[in-house]
Amino acid sequence: MGSGNGGVRFAKGHGTENDFVLLPDPDGALQLSATRVAALCDRRRGLGADGVLRVVRWAALGDDSAPAPEPGVEWFMDYRNADGSVAEMCGNGVRVFARYLAHAGWLPDGPGAELRLGTRGGVRTVRFAGGDGVAGEVSVDMGPARIGDTSTATVDGRAFRGVAVDVGNPHLACVTDVELEGLDLAVPPGHDPALFPHGVNVEFVSPLRGGTDGTGGTGEVAMRVHERGVGETRSCGTGTVAAVVAVLRHAGVETGTVPVRAPGGRLRVTVDAATTTLHGPAVLVGHGELERSWWDAQG
Amino acid sequence: MGSGNGGVRFAKGHGTENDFVLLPDPDGALQLSATRVAALCDRRRGLGADGVLRVVRWAALGDDSAPAPEPGVEWFMDYRNADGSVAEMCGNGVRVFARYLAHAGWLPDGPGAELRLGTRGGVRTVRFAGGDGVAGEVSVDMGPARIGDTSTATVDGRAFRGVAVDVGNPHLACVTDVELEGLDLAVPPGHDPALFPHGVNVEFVSPLRGGTDGTGGTGEVAMRVHERGVGETRSCGTGTVAAVVAVLRHAGVETGTVPVRAPGGRLRVTVDAATTTLHGPAVLVGHGELERSWWDAQG
Repeated sequence: MGSGNGGVRFAKGHGTENDFVLLPDPDGALQLSATRVAALCDRRRGLGADGVLRVVRWAALGDDSAPAPEPGVEWFMDYRNADGSVAEMCGNGVRVFARYLAHAGWLPDGPGAELRLGTRGGVRTVRFAGGDGVAGEVSVDMGPARIGDTSTATVDGRAFRGVAVDVGNPHLACVTDVELEGLDLAVPPGHDPALFPHGVNVEFVSPLRGGTDGTGGTGEVAMRVHERGVGETRSCGTGTVAAVVAVLRHAGVETGTVPVRAPGGRLRVTVDAATTTLHGPAVLVGHGELERSWWDAQG
Repeated sequence: MGSGNGGVRFAKGHGTENDFVLLPDPDGALQLSATRVAALCDRRRGLGADGVLRVVRWAALGDDSAPAPEPGVEWFMDYRNADGSVAEMCGNGVRVFARYLAHAGWLPDGPGAELRLGTRGGVRTVRFAGGDGVAGEVSVDMGPARIGDTSTATVDGRAFRGVAVDVGNPHLACVTDVELEGLDLAVPPGHDPALFPHGVNVEFVSPLRGGTDGTGGTGEVAMRVHERGVGETRSCGTGTVAAVVAVLRHAGVETGTVPVRAPGGRLRVTVDAATTTLHGPAVLVGHGELERSWWDAQG
């Protein structure tokens, strides 16, 4: 059972219970089909995860549909959904990806430095809080969020006012005083198909309480999120950003830092004039090798 | 990320999609609390599994409530449920456990020989079909099954006649012609609390079709199972035995071999005058080490 049996290396980790199988593949040698990704993510037949993060040098990515490598950006987060499809970005995944690079000793400048990572959604800048690659928070620049029209989400026939927020993907973030625990999110919330023709991720978030000066609010807000095509999730990186943008707007301010309690754990979002930043934990659970016989049987 | 960082070794495997984390602990050195088992089995915060199989020499088990070691039986399957509680036996788990021992090279006589394993439910005899420790079926002696009274299970107000079968734990196996796919097993089937005061596992199984001479029936039956305290599962070892006992009785015979198609895969059960034997696959997916920092944080 030792190493060197020709198995495929993996690691498992999560960010606020959004969990991933990482496949270290620096030189792009891995044959990673959609079937293999789906088998890996199967929670009973495989290892089980919300998605796969292939850890590959951008120059070795081997995907003509992805952005071309940028000078000075070594690593690319090749993110795949659990069904095997390709995805652009994942705010929780990128923290786990960065933590893995640091833990593996693959950051030439060490984990204290600013790290730029390639993704299908563009280059993202990551920082390790405290400069420690093994523990502590990881922050990721999520890019600017654009506020759109107000609209309505319906749950169990009940209407919730919300605001459209574009964080690379579409969100409808509803600030509400109702008890979030009581919401039935087992079915997708209703939304306006004219405003969201490709569906929408819907956040329900409690309002900011106590004083906020717009630069460093101290109140924690609670959030639940329904991801389009997935269902309710324990946590959603872009959804957390959208929720905070909506909460700040609701409080009458445009910038600030707000802690968010999602079902899967605690995150923080900073909104400033230029961009949004997601801060949160990234946990590595273990690492090892897939049995070669298992890998080969997944086609 | 190499080995030797003080991490805790693990493997992951499944039998007909009943999945397990194996913890090789030959000398009984592991501090395995219920909290750690639950964290390991958590499908988002941990590795994720239906249960943990600690692989320990019987002499090193260190559990006064377990049976005392028997001469000539080296290994003990220390099975824990996903919630951290101790369990007696698991027909799918014991195949994966045996496959692991063979794969690890821990069988002094090689995998071709008959293997006797200690469990909290008594010593079980295991055989590798084809004598190959890496692939192929594993068979396990499940002990005799005792047929009890007939009774009724109710699903959605509909009654199904069944027979009580004791396979170390209580079952109500209902042979039925209805389409199994249409049954709503999201809620536990109703049962007679006087006959099953501690609850019951309920199987729904299609009747044996075509000829059976009582020693080697060729027809495959379909099965679904609801496990008490768990819900519907992809597969259940003792439930598969109970279903075949009921199917043979329904066909007017007492012994035979019947293939069973469960949602998680295919199994076979042989019933003879002395005992029952479960035959089925055991798949090892991968192996590795838990990060020491993660393990220590689970208390």
